[in-house]
Amino acid sequence: MLTIANQTFHSRLFLGTGKFSSRQVMADAVKASGTELVTMALKRVDVHASDDDILAPLLECGVNLLPNTSGARTAEEAIFAAQLAREALGTSFLKLEIHPDPRYLMPDPIETLKAAEELVKQGFHVLPYIHADPVICKRLEDVGCAAVMPLASPIGSNLGLRTKDFIQIIIEGSNVPVVVDAGIGSPSDAAEAMEMGADAVLVNTAIAVAGNPVVMADAFRMAVTAGRMAYESGLGGRQLKAEASSPLTAFLES
Amino acid sequence: MLTIANQTFHSRLFLGTGKFSSRQVMADAVKASGTELVTMALKRVDVHASDDDILAPLLECGVNLLPNTSGARTAEEAIFAAQLAREALGTSFLKLEIHPDPRYLMPDPIETLKAAEELVKQGFHVLPYIHADPVICKRLEDVGCAAVMPLASPIGSNLGLRTKDFIQIIIEGSNVPVVVDAGIGSPSDAAEAMEMGADAVLVNTAIAVAGNPVVMADAFRMAVTAGRMAYESGLGGRQLKAEASSPLTAFLES
Amino acid sequence: MLTIANQTFHSRLFLGTGKFSSRQVMADAVKASGTELVTMALKRVDVHASDDDILAPLLECGVNLLPNTSGARTAEEAIFAAQLAREALGTSFLKLEIHPDPRYLMPDPIETLKAAEELVKQGFHVLPYIHADPVICKRLEDVGCAAVMPLASPIGSNLGLRTKDFIQIIIEGSNVPVVVDAGIGSPSDAAEAMEMGADAVLVNTAIAVAGNPVVMADAFRMAVTAGRMAYESGLGGRQLKAEASSPLTAFLES
Amino acid sequence: MLTIANQTFHSRLFLGTGKFSSRQVMADAVKASGTELVTMALKRVDVHASDDDILAPLLECGVNLLPNTSGARTAEEAIFAAQLAREALGTSFLKLEIHPDPRYLMPDPIETLKAAEELVKQGFHVLPYIHADPVICKRLEDVGCAAVMPLASPIGSNLGLRTKDFIQIIIEGSNVPVVVDAGIGSPSDAAEAMEMGADAVLVNTAIAVAGNPVVMADAFRMAVTAGRMAYESGLGGRQLKAEASSPLTAFLES
Repeated sequence: MLTIANQTFHSRLFLGTGKFSSRQVMADAVKASGTELVTMALKRVDVHASDDDILAPLLECGVNLLPNTSGARTAEEAIFAAQLAREALGTSFLKLEIHPDPRYLMPDPIETLKAAEELVKQGFHVLPYIHADPVICKRLEDVGCAAVMPLASPIGSNLGLRTKDFIQIIIEGSNVPVVVDAGIGSPSDAAEAMEMGADAVLVNTAIAVAGNPVVMADAFRMAVTAGRMAYESGLGGRQLKAEASSPLTAFLES
Repeated sequence: MLTIANQTFHSRLFLGTGKFSSRQVMADAVKASGTELVTMALKRVDVHASDDDILAPLLECGVNLLPNTSGARTAEEAIFAAQLAREALGTSFLKLEIHPDPRYLMPDPIETLKAAEELVKQGFHVLPYIHADPVICKRLEDVGCAAVMPLASPIGSNLGLRTKDFIQIIIEGSNVPVVVDAGIGSPSDAAEAMEMGADAVLVNTAIAVAGNPVVMADAFRMAVTAGRMAYESGLGGRQLKAEASSPLTAFLES
Repeated sequence: MLTIANQTFHSRLFLGTGKFSSRQVMADAVKASGTELVTMALKRVDVHASDDDILAPLLECGVNLLPNTSGARTAEEAIFAAQLAREALGTSFLKLEIHPDPRYLMPDPIETLKAAEELVKQGFHVLPYIHADPVICKRLEDVGCAAVMPLASPIGSNLGLRTKDFIQIIIEGSNVPVVVDAGIGSPSDAAEAMEMGADAVLVNTAIAVAGNPVVMADAFRMAVTAGRMAYESGLGGRQLKAEASSPLTAFLES
Repeated sequence: MLTIANQTFHSRLFLGTGKFSSRQVMADAVKASGTELVTMALKRVDVHASDDDILAPLLECGVNLLPNTSGARTAEEAIFAAQLAREALGTSFLKLEIHPDPRYLMPDPIETLKAAEELVKQGFHVLPYIHADPVICKRLEDVGCAAVMPLASPIGSNLGLRTKDFIQIIIEGSNVPVVVDAGIGSPSDAAEAMEMGADAVLVNTAIAVAGNPVVMADAFRMAVTAGRMAYESGLGGRQLKAEASSPLTAFLES
């Protein structure tokens, strides 16, 4: 079981809530995925309406909320958004996202570390979205982040584990959970991250824009479980030389 | 549901039976995998003993048998082995394997086509193990093979889908089921093959040599299902440019 | 120096002549590439005209001709084309190409082996274009081919060394020169093939469709030389763990 | 021609000086490479000896020196080392390297930005070694760095362009030269970086540990030139569908 801050999770699949064609599809996908943690941008939630159309179905599903600071370009903006989110949603969990560049939405390591340090002091459970950079991941851990969320490839690209070599180094060295975020494009990508020893993955676009998002969410659920089981049961090594699964003794000669 | 020759399959995971540490582990892995088709070298079966220690547990599991001609180096040897197998095991299903080179166990396209043509005439349901070569796959289909089994990477290498570009072309062009065989090293590899539209995968080494083969078999079961569901529900495209899952409108300014 | 059949070559870059925007550009690219062997489809040569507009500039460059059987779909067609080519061009060198499928132009191993066997008997120096299949390469060597030409990726795709793992096996096992053909999309692809130990590469599309084919031909010339030199001088191994190029002793403390 | 700060370079290959088996081999490799800029750790130079055995041969070659701060773990240490280097070697060029982790020698983005800002103020021409992180590269440019040096893969790993997708984004967005550093393992890797539009590459281990470092240096020289020429002359696109280089019209029927 996965523990982040004071919370335990049976499911190692986290979901994003953007890009779904309707609230109903989103809620059905959330259910099918088995997720216990969903992230959403503060802006998307009408924090004053008791019948907010995105929050209500999520709360019905019984999932935990992970508000994010998507859209923030500086530490200051992110901290302000985080405070609003905690007040509105009553949770100290926070996905910290700071991306000054609108084109590839890459995280800013300087602003992210600065905001993380402050938010931890303010009692947040901070999960920063960050480049797959082993050094900054370590520094985020050192200032008290509850987990790190290195990116697999650019947000929404569906390109999969392009940062594989560095994710491996991050996993090796991390004392907090490693949640692979952004760019996971298919169940096989998610399984691969889990096989490497990631603690969880966060998926959004690949499910939301699938032909059938609900079936895709179910597929991701199974793939994440499969990947974790494979990691735990011990994958064999890779090698170029073939080894026969079947015996090679020339049976016809016997 | 998958149909090969006159047989339908709910499971799209086929298993090999080599390299397991014991018969019991093998039988338990077969059950956990949910497979309905297992392959074994003729040599490994004592066809005269009613209590053969590999056959008995498999038959108890209720799986179909796919005898293979592993060890054959020529069409002639393979045809002889096939006939023995049919007589001994009472099945016309045959995995045709002809690999003259003991080092990498690569299939011989010339001998394989020759043997396939003859075996089809003799009433076998032939599933040939073959290089991921679109032209030879088409020719094997043309002489009446029930499926084609292109290799992902060298047998036992666990290297995964190194022939991906060619498997894609084979799937596009094939009128018989495409079963990806050899080199599948992890559940994510299996899921990836299924996401590309393969009809099934055959796995052996990655399960047999896993730390816990039974859990690994279960993981492959889920990964194959997940990959198939993803294929059917429609994966999104891949692109370098990022697209925000969460809206980018600068919410703090509103 | 590379020897194929009775001929030695200083340059390990072979060129195709298709797709160039003009004869002049082709001739200039041939010169800039330093190649000593160019291939052309028989059809493109007017064998009766003494002033054929493709042959003349090539012969002026002093390069050897390697007529190919592009367009042939069977062994029979290829053999007929080969005979015409020898008669018209006065060379026994032949690039044997048989591809029944017009979409991906993949070589047919069965027809290619059959034609190769016959053409060798007729005294041709046969260089077959073939899938990167180690077994069929070995069989082509066994029937007397002067070299083998495994494909890197589909013709004209510019996708580079997608068959790398298998090319490596082919190089390990071959007693005749291995010329990597088809799909080489950039000088780095060509260098990579040479670094692996390929004896030569054949390039066409990547040069012919470049913005500046003459400069690109020169770039390929250097890349092939560089790759060969790297192979001969011994590349270091690859490993994930870092090793400092500069010493790590904390120099500031001394 | 490449310009960094106030200096122009004909060669786009920079060299490191670590790991060579002898001073003579290093000097010969430097000459063979055609480089005009070599980097060395301050520690390795005896700044008080007029006949220092590493400096003398380099100065004889007429190359520019790029002292680096290898071994520094903080901005403070790096700044101190930079000042020593400038005083000792009489150059304001500086390769800024700060890597707190001895295992993979990954650069620290926080300390690097802090040091860069200060060193630029002190009049240095700063070339920071940094993760292939587009945001931090942009910030380093913004504080006045003369170039950015994103890593291809871990130092000394010879793994090549594992950060390719991100290097591409960095090149697209950068207004200062992009010098790909660390992990370049072969001439083909160097050519590939140049084909993508990198302004230069820095190579050390792959040359220093080669079987024949001098020949390898020459090979890198050609590969870098080839890659740059390919970039400038315009590479063709990549696509899966084949396109015949030779015409497909069935010439035998005419």
